[in-house]
Amino acid sequence: MKALVLSSGGVDSTTLLAIACDRYGAENVISLSVYYGQKHSKELEAAAKVADYYGVRHMTSDLSEVFSSSDCTLLKGRGDIPHESYAEQLKKTGGSPVSTYVPFRNGLFLAAAASCALSEGCSVVMYGAHADDAAGNAYPDCSEEFVESMGRAISLGTGGELTLEAPFVRMDKSQVVAKGVALKVPYELTWSCYEGGDTPCLKCATCLDRIAAFRANGLMIN
Amino acid sequence: MKALVLSSGGVDSTTLLAIACDRYGAENVISLSVYYGQKHSKELEAAAKVADYYGVRHMTSDLSEVFSSSDCTLLKGRGDIPHESYAEQLKKTGGSPVSTYVPFRNGLFLAAAASCALSEGCSVVMYGAHADDAAGNAYPDCSEEFVESMGRAISLGTGGELTLEAPFVRMDKSQVVAKGVALKVPYELTWSCYEGGDTPCLKCATCLDRIAAFRANGLMIN
Repeated sequence: MKALVLSSGGVDSTTLLAIACDRYGAENVISLSVYYGQKHSKELEAAAKVADYYGVRHMTSDLSEVFSSSDCTLLKGRGDIPHESYAEQLKKTGGSPVSTYVPFRNGLFLAAAASCALSEGCSVVMYGAHADDAAGNAYPDCSEEFVESMGRAISLGTGGELTLEAPFVRMDKSQVVAKGVALKVPYELTWSCYEGGDTPCLKCATCLDRIAAFRANGLMIN
Repeated sequence: MKALVLSSGGVDSTTLLAIACDRYGAENVISLSVYYGQKHSKELEAAAKVADYYGVRHMTSDLSEVFSSSDCTLLKGRGDIPHESYAEQLKKTGGSPVSTYVPFRNGLFLAAAASCALSEGCSVVMYGAHADDAAGNAYPDCSEEFVESMGRAISLGTGGELTLEAPFVRMDKSQVVAKGVALKVPYELTWSCYEGGDTPCLKCATCLDRIAAFRANGLMIN
């Protein structure tokens, strides 16, 4: 059985890759990373390093053209990334998605993952969405309801050839890291920060979430 | 209210574009066509002509990289397109998708359409799938169940900002053409044939379906 893991080079998808390798064997796992016009290349570099560490095949896809009209702050040439937590941002948006929400990005990535997976003879697509990202509607394409519908669409639209697995969808990030710690995930190879500096900014929402999840598991890295 | 119509330059999506213009006004309609590595450019040329006829903005997107590993016969450099009806092909596949099924193509197109639509301030994505294409599992990503799930995923994954409409999902192709005839759709501008010749081959499954739907409505064009 072959599996394709949607991999951003961050904490969650790297933990998922570890689970996939543990379950299916690295030779049966493909890592897929997408360039979508993000401000920097740190994520993709981290995803390549992680794939190399686990000895899995790493595929990349450039879907940036799809977001050429978007004003999302995660994209190159758009506005500044907020330096505050998701909770603080959601107070301002009034429950609408945050400014770093890329329009239906994860829906597009999952669809592309399904197309690739089918071409490569995989029967499983794995997705690292977790409950913290969906909380308060910050990223609606991380919610359990979305994952369930998208999984059904993928299964039906491929004639039953593919299944979507998202084992973290009810977990918070610290629970994801706990899984990773048990599997000795090399978190030092991962990158989460939305800014593209030499070191993480430690101020954007994803840096704050990452540090909190590490600290909750006794990891004193950033 | 703005709508984005997924447009292939064929009979079904052109009829849908006519309905969208009739309902929302051409100035509020965007046509999106996708290059996915198909053997010829006739479809995209037809989509551009149709958009021009209706005076709607025409966007294109190149997602061909996603299908680089696929062996689908619709793609450039792959095997020959079958010159027989879908019913004959399905007898051979035993109910599996036909060789012109592009892996989860319509799932990917709908996800890309959702991303574009959200960036462009649309609240509706329109999709021309109809019951003939889904029959016998020839194209599972045209089935009513798939459309329903994908529509739910799009609505949930965009925080309720977008709705998917697929008004033909329970119609056969002759019923679609009947709608188009009532709206005076310029079917002479459309292209359906999977081959890229100067004129339609009249032998591939989509040519056969097109002719049958036209004849059922008294249209003596090909």
